[in-house]
Amino acid sequence: MRMVGVQHIGIAVGDLETGIPAFERLFGVKCGKREKIEASGVEVAFFDFGNTEIELVSPTGPAGPISRYLEKRGNGIHHICLAVEGIDDWLEALKAGGVRLLDEAPRQGASGHRVAFIDPASAEGILFELSE
Amino acid sequence: MRMVGVQHIGIAVGDLETGIPAFERLFGVKCGKREKIEASGVEVAFFDFGNTEIELVSPTGPAGPISRYLEKRGNGIHHICLAVEGIDDWLEALKAGGVRLLDEAPRQGASGHRVAFIDPASAEGILFELSE
Repeated sequence: MRMVGVQHIGIAVGDLETGIPAFERLFGVKCGKREKIEASGVEVAFFDFGNTEIELVSPTGPAGPISRYLEKRGNGIHHICLAVEGIDDWLEALKAGGVRLLDEAPRQGASGHRVAFIDPASAEGILFELSE
Repeated sequence: MRMVGVQHIGIAVGDLETGIPAFERLFGVKCGKREKIEASGVEVAFFDFGNTEIELVSPTGPAGPISRYLEKRGNGIHHICLAVEGIDDWLEALKAGGVRLLDEAPRQGASGHRVAFIDPASAEGILFELSE
């Protein structure tokens, strides 16, 4: 059970087709990987900034939390994903400390990683994802 | 002129006195540094996550952009700070590419770094800071 670091910063965008080239132009960092996560109803695109990654997240349909987020406030920095070792132990320790989780057990995220989200109500209003 | 990586992720919080211990408890990472930036009307606190840092930003008075942000939407992930080499050249290149800047020239940020913010209107709605 170890904190490895920030795996990525998740940015919600309405449209990957315009979002990807816009970010590529801005900083000259090319999009390295695109992936549909069917179970979450999103498509994601990763930009490697060397020490960590920026992930663009876009909904593939009108339902789901990313669509609701975008409707409410437009594009924005949506979550911080922390790379950890021992995600099951992390979730147990957080629960034991009274932290509410959006995922009681890890589920499959991008690149086949096991991921779980923490309830922002237990994290000063910030959405954190743990990933292993 | 080089992109070094993500220097920190800035999180706006209403109160550092409750925010710092809450984040310390959550992930077991201690606050490493606190600093008032008088010119910006904010106090910041840094947490070293190994590959990058998380910065809590809190207003020191009722005016300023962080106060307005918090009034509008409460705590949230406020900006992404990118470490660069050659910040003056970066700003010139961005301007030449039609990107609007909130700071036409670098100003002094935390730890004496030279920083400048990009207008979110030119960055898909996301607030980016460059730092050298």
